[in-house]
Amino acid sequence: MGEFELIRQFFTRPGATTGAGVVLGVGDDCALLQPAPGMHMAISTDMLVQGRHFFADVDPRTLGHKALAVNLSDLAACGARPVAFTLALALPQADPAWLGPFAQGLFALADAHACTLVGGDTTRGPLTICITVFGEVPGSHGQSQALLRSGAQVGDDVYVSGTLGDAHLALLALQGKLPTGLVLPPAVLAQARQRLEQPTPRVALGLALRGIATAAADVSDGLLGDLGHILERSGAGMPFGLGATLNTTIATSLIAACAHSTRAKGTFDSQIPATLALRCVLSGGDDYELVFTAPPARQAQVLAAAAQAATPVTCIGRIEAQPGLRLVDANGAPVPHNLASFDHFASE
Amino acid sequence: MGEFELIRQFFTRPGATTGAGVVLGVGDDCALLQPAPGMHMAISTDMLVQGRHFFADVDPRTLGHKALAVNLSDLAACGARPVAFTLALALPQADPAWLGPFAQGLFALADAHACTLVGGDTTRGPLTICITVFGEVPGSHGQSQALLRSGAQVGDDVYVSGTLGDAHLALLALQGKLPTGLVLPPAVLAQARQRLEQPTPRVALGLALRGIATAAADVSDGLLGDLGHILERSGAGMPFGLGATLNTTIATSLIAACAHSTRAKGTFDSQIPATLALRCVLSGGDDYELVFTAPPARQAQVLAAAAQAATPVTCIGRIEAQPGLRLVDANGAPVPHNLASFDHFASE
Repeated sequence: MGEFELIRQFFTRPGATTGAGVVLGVGDDCALLQPAPGMHMAISTDMLVQGRHFFADVDPRTLGHKALAVNLSDLAACGARPVAFTLALALPQADPAWLGPFAQGLFALADAHACTLVGGDTTRGPLTICITVFGEVPGSHGQSQALLRSGAQVGDDVYVSGTLGDAHLALLALQGKLPTGLVLPPAVLAQARQRLEQPTPRVALGLALRGIATAAADVSDGLLGDLGHILERSGAGMPFGLGATLNTTIATSLIAACAHSTRAKGTFDSQIPATLALRCVLSGGDDYELVFTAPPARQAQVLAAAAQAATPVTCIGRIEAQPGLRLVDANGAPVPHNLASFDHFASE
Repeated sequence: MGEFELIRQFFTRPGATTGAGVVLGVGDDCALLQPAPGMHMAISTDMLVQGRHFFADVDPRTLGHKALAVNLSDLAACGARPVAFTLALALPQADPAWLGPFAQGLFALADAHACTLVGGDTTRGPLTICITVFGEVPGSHGQSQALLRSGAQVGDDVYVSGTLGDAHLALLALQGKLPTGLVLPPAVLAQARQRLEQPTPRVALGLALRGIATAAADVSDGLLGDLGHILERSGAGMPFGLGATLNTTIATSLIAACAHSTRAKGTFDSQIPATLALRCVLSGGDDYELVFTAPPARQAQVLAAAAQAATPVTCIGRIEAQPGLRLVDANGAPVPHNLASFDHFASE
């Protein structure tokens, strides 16, 4: 199969140039988008590399889903409505048995968000997927309604959506890196693995939080790291940014597999230790939930937005003027920690 | 060096968020662009893979240049003005001795085109560069002034910019694939290698050809293949598209190294055979010149546009209703050929 046949067979779809805002799609030197009047275009790009972001034997359907999901998650964090995406793909070979399900997983998620594939590039090489997404967010004259990392204020509540830590728990299990003696029950592993391989971008929540949240980021590298970006970029004029205190008891409750395991522990031969759950929740990464801030006075609006988006949110802490991230238990006592977020170039 | 330190040190620049049309640059979940009123956004993405698109020992400065140049070339082919780009980079390691010159080569070309880096992604992996570029082209309500592949008309002249084939000649030389006994003089190789490693995107020509050229594409996979895309997509309602006849004598004269070698052949011990020159020019690829069409009545306008852009153009043939590409010599006699354009997934 040649390059152009590959594109025609798997990545060209009838009507694909008729998406809202899409003037010209796949097939020319460039795609053409026309942002609606009064709209800024939000752009994000993520590259997934085999052996780094996914296992070689991953189901191509879930990989197609995840490759787009991690990009839509960035649009969600900005409160942008998805419009279109480009796909650059390096493949060891043009294998229809792989490309078919990959494209199915990709387009199922794209269709669910009315996000049109408008262009791309295919080449031979080590399996690598680079998607760039385009979304719309109201704005004009340099003023944007986008949710940014830089808007958190002292006294704001810190929220996270959904659950955290399950993806990392699955990763540890699949890598054989769980603590000795800990075996995840199959149902728990399946649930956690679903989170690792098919994350749900919180697009509806991001849209609903426009004008309510003061700052937002998606949790891709780990909660502490991604909240850390908000703290660094907020607090204009403060040399070390802002700080926050998080309640670890609440945070740890957010690991769904753990809760599941705890609830049903009578039937399981193992239970996830609290320290492992804490590590998965706070520094695991790959969750693709949103972490965001809002003033306590807007709590009702936050909860209404969450209900509108059918996405649970939990308040786990508060923004403070003192720089740094502090963890406390249910009684307010400090919890020592030595957790870092994921860094692709940190020493291993 | 960590991921964020790498981004800060090599890919974050003062004032980088102040480019025209850029509302928010590097550092948040998304970048924000604001297309000017009455403008469509042209988008293209290209992925370069080590061992496929460049040699492992290539000068990182020229690689930084080329990675952006091949994308700007797509904007040029559409007649779009460059605005911004994103960079996704997989690196085996964070090596400042490599990243420094790579960033220098990248930003030197970006600055020359006022094209702002607005975001990206870095990860560990086999060296892979994926750039997505954004440009502006006038348009509204689905009507665009972009140069498309689909607008060629029967009777149009076929033009190419600059010279063709030198990049492929250099590639053959560097791969040791030149015909036995043929050794390129060092000056010829250096000139050809410059074309391979540091192509010049024809942005000014693309802009000048808006409203004059009926169709355009950039020559990346080889002239026959890229002109073939124009022929396929033009001729609406014709099942096999349009055709063209090209004058091989004129085409072959476009290989600069060949001309150089021929001119100075008294001092060289070898000369590039005409069949090799023809192959390099017609199917070599990696030229990043423009191939475009325009009615004979607009010849003066084409030449004026070329002069305005300080870019030579040559008429090499004519669009015809009969599908297929035909080659003729200076006397109009058919030249048989068996040339294909580059295909990443063709059998090797």
